[in-house]
Amino acid sequence: VDHPLRERDLIAWIRDRAPATGDDCAVLPCDPWGDLLVTVDSVIDGVHAHWAEDGPGAFGYKAVARGLSDIAAMGGQPLWAVVAATLPKGSGDEQARALFVGAESAGCELVGGDTSVGPVASVTATVLGRVNHGAAILRSGARVGDRIIVSGCLGGSYESGHHLRFRPRVEEARLLREHCAVTAMIDISDGLAVDLHHILEASGVGARVFSERIPLRTDSLDAALHEGEDYELLACVAAGATIPAPFVEIGEIVKDGALLVHPDGSEEPLEPRGYEHRG
Amino acid sequence: VDHPLRERDLIAWIRDRAPATGDDCAVLPCDPWGDLLVTVDSVIDGVHAHWAEDGPGAFGYKAVARGLSDIAAMGGQPLWAVVAATLPKGSGDEQARALFVGAESAGCELVGGDTSVGPVASVTATVLGRVNHGAAILRSGARVGDRIIVSGCLGGSYESGHHLRFRPRVEEARLLREHCAVTAMIDISDGLAVDLHHILEASGVGARVFSERIPLRTDSLDAALHEGEDYELLACVAAGATIPAPFVEIGEIVKDGALLVHPDGSEEPLEPRGYEHRG
Repeated sequence: VDHPLRERDLIAWIRDRAPATGDDCAVLPCDPWGDLLVTVDSVIDGVHAHWAEDGPGAFGYKAVARGLSDIAAMGGQPLWAVVAATLPKGSGDEQARALFVGAESAGCELVGGDTSVGPVASVTATVLGRVNHGAAILRSGARVGDRIIVSGCLGGSYESGHHLRFRPRVEEARLLREHCAVTAMIDISDGLAVDLHHILEASGVGARVFSERIPLRTDSLDAALHEGEDYELLACVAAGATIPAPFVEIGEIVKDGALLVHPDGSEEPLEPRGYEHRG
Repeated sequence: VDHPLRERDLIAWIRDRAPATGDDCAVLPCDPWGDLLVTVDSVIDGVHAHWAEDGPGAFGYKAVARGLSDIAAMGGQPLWAVVAATLPKGSGDEQARALFVGAESAGCELVGGDTSVGPVASVTATVLGRVNHGAAILRSGARVGDRIIVSGCLGGSYESGHHLRFRPRVEEARLLREHCAVTAMIDISDGLAVDLHHILEASGVGARVFSERIPLRTDSLDAALHEGEDYELLACVAAGATIPAPFVEIGEIVKDGALLVHPDGSEEPLEPRGYEHRG
């Protein structure tokens, strides 16, 4: 999907101006309490979900769940969420309540809400979490020899409705840290290919990914690589550790390049191509 | 302006479910660092500003400035802002950058940004601040005999463009706390009448406001009472202290009722009527 906003350039520009803009979350030192994690995500009618079909509850749920997935990807503990909702004209209290009940059901304490009436439905959730000072898992820590692992099935998230119902991998991230030295982590929102490249670029390394090891939701490898909206965790862990379920190993970090390796031994470049938007 | 969403009921309902939803901000204890203040505000095209005329920078500025005004009203120190922007289809990098430059110019460190492309332009800013533990100024502390003060001119904010350019009263709030025992504070977004009633209800008290003392931006007392979007501070302070400029005294807290007192001694009820929305 081609769109006029070169989002990656823009994100780089924002990051230049705002060094605390970390990876999936901003990391804000609040000594001696710990580091505060902050992430913001929007769900817009016609872009990330459909108000008429999916309903207000799905909007509230998805907005908060996306934020929880970001906190999980930093290895953090989610604490609080605030939700700003824009309801379409003609909405009543019932829709507003359904939206906030949906937001609550994502499993994070709701501590604030703002509602407006506007031309298009949207929900923006800010999710706050905590990690010990300096303990946030960044994208930049992957090292040659690390195993590349993923927490669940990829692809077909839109058509299956997974993108509205996924359970953020907060517990899985906590468990993973207990078992492994996690060197880099991200949640897969733009697709395995694009999000893996985020890690590779930030870490200055390459990767080999074995196509037959990628867990598929549908029978399409292409969907698993490029569709996105999976909200599974993609992590790099030091070799040698036992990888806890549901994580599965799909590849390894190498010096440079990004290759997809097929069962017959053939290789092809793993291009960072994805869907930045559906709008 | 009549609108179908009974926002006050909804806010009460959210507050029931989310006790940390404080006044202008959520107050979240992060011992021993302090109390974290969190507020979220949206600026939506056609509701709070006009994209085509006012431009992207005004959207970014207003969204963050509204949050800073909320932090000021709690007596807090603003620290960080994250901004989620939805740009209309056809927008380019230039508009996105103008939006974030506008957001930065409100005077708070920008630590995160998210951009989407959608059918209607909007910006949601989450602003984070800090107060010492237990030191947030609430709406509920006004006591009989307190003076009611306001930080600047009211009314005509929309027609004058003040609502896009106001300087959040962060420094004034700090100064006020140094000089006075501030018992309750709010920023005037819904209009003096409505926002004063928020204090009166939360504190269980009444008020007498002297009409000729209200600082007017235009020559309309009605606009000053009911239009809103002034983003001045409305505070109650214990009697006897010297009130620092630019604050002016406009009335006093009494046992019950809410009266507007005119120079000829006549009185009329001060009704909590305002503009909840412009959409």
